[in-house]
Amino acid sequence: MSELSPQALRTRIRSGEHRDNTSGFAPGYVQCNIVILPEAWAADFLTFCQRNPKPCPLIASGQPGDPNLPSLGDIDIRSDVPSYRVYRDGELVEERSDIGELWQADLVTFALGCSFSFEEALMADGLEVRNISEGVNVPMYRTSIDCAAAGPYVGKMVVSMRPFPAADAIRAVQICTRFPSVHGAPIHLGDPSLIGIEDLAAPDYGEAVTLRNNELPVFWACGVTPQVALEQARPPLCITHSPGCMLVTDLPNSRLAIL
Amino acid sequence: MSELSPQALRTRIRSGEHRDNTSGFAPGYVQCNIVILPEAWAADFLTFCQRNPKPCPLIASGQPGDPNLPSLGDIDIRSDVPSYRVYRDGELVEERSDIGELWQADLVTFALGCSFSFEEALMADGLEVRNISEGVNVPMYRTSIDCAAAGPYVGKMVVSMRPFPAADAIRAVQICTRFPSVHGAPIHLGDPSLIGIEDLAAPDYGEAVTLRNNELPVFWACGVTPQVALEQARPPLCITHSPGCMLVTDLPNSRLAIL
Repeated sequence: MSELSPQALRTRIRSGEHRDNTSGFAPGYVQCNIVILPEAWAADFLTFCQRNPKPCPLIASGQPGDPNLPSLGDIDIRSDVPSYRVYRDGELVEERSDIGELWQADLVTFALGCSFSFEEALMADGLEVRNISEGVNVPMYRTSIDCAAAGPYVGKMVVSMRPFPAADAIRAVQICTRFPSVHGAPIHLGDPSLIGIEDLAAPDYGEAVTLRNNELPVFWACGVTPQVALEQARPPLCITHSPGCMLVTDLPNSRLAIL
Repeated sequence: MSELSPQALRTRIRSGEHRDNTSGFAPGYVQCNIVILPEAWAADFLTFCQRNPKPCPLIASGQPGDPNLPSLGDIDIRSDVPSYRVYRDGELVEERSDIGELWQADLVTFALGCSFSFEEALMADGLEVRNISEGVNVPMYRTSIDCAAAGPYVGKMVVSMRPFPAADAIRAVQICTRFPSVHGAPIHLGDPSLIGIEDLAAPDYGEAVTLRNNELPVFWACGVTPQVALEQARPPLCITHSPGCMLVTDLPNSRLAIL
């Protein structure tokens, strides 16, 4: 089943047959975080992404009211994400597998890069990605790093952490530098307290992973950052993907490499 | 004086007017480590460089008996280095400013990249290079890392160390990755003991620099590595530049950038 093409997988998602995590599905293709906002709240969010490109790397945005994202494939954003979260005034009010009934003429869709793409590039180079080898969600932490504010959007940066021996950490910087639209190079490595993380064993999201004596924790800007900013901004309506249930696109991961 | 062109500086060196350090002279141009060996000892040294490209990045090599290096400029290697060290059977026997009298029909010249080029690239990007801001020779350390042997050439890798806050260390990896022929990306960062360095305050060569609490030590493969291998191999004759007294070439540093 994981060998389905992105198109075939989206057909199953669109029909409601696949309502789950997309991790491991359609390997080699870009999967995106999704944020849908009313047009009145969209311009500031776009500015927030522009000012914070490492946690909020925009890959595509839709026209107001248009549910298609033609640059990413034959996509109807009302049905092509396996599971959606609907927030009203910043509060999660429901989780559903189709948002056709909620669609409005002023809704704007944003698709943001996700770490699946760079994890695949790291593994293709022979690096061990600990959260994958240990079969858990990557550990994520709220940091003391302020995002650049834009209108109502403000907040601290959230990071994901993957441990590596130093030589692999250096290699990871090289590999991820090629992929700025999926968070790019790490933003920190080494001492977690320097970015306001007290305890690596107690992540704010996801699950802790093993950190060996000869390893450094390596930190990437994380796509949960815009979600935190959205929770604080409290737009009247906001729709996102459910964690791990991403938009699967027709874009090969290699297309995101700048080199 | 530091604004002399590489050609004008070499004219002064060739005439014996400049017999000193070349650090800070002819900014923007590649300076090289020099190793001159009898042809019978050259092939294995070339293999050693090929197998250890990070400490021994070859930029040019001469024909046996030919003192010119046309790819680097109008160079006569018998006179164009400010100060030479002459080793016989592995022992330093003299230091001189011209090797015309010692030249032999079987001598082969090797020019290797040096850290001046990448230090310039780091500073051009706004990073502080501690050994430069503190006005000392970069600290260098013998590590526990074995070089790949070639014939009589064998030994541990020597590294140079520059401290950076994590974000600058990540940036330094990106910048230096563009310059593989001047040692390229760092080979280690963080815990020195993992590469066999006991005490950062006691370098084996050069001088210690300040390491602040929020900084990581970042380690680059160093051009002293081949000198150590040469001392152990004990060729009947070997001529090198004196420390800091490099061959100044007509090659702009930017020409070494692979991207």
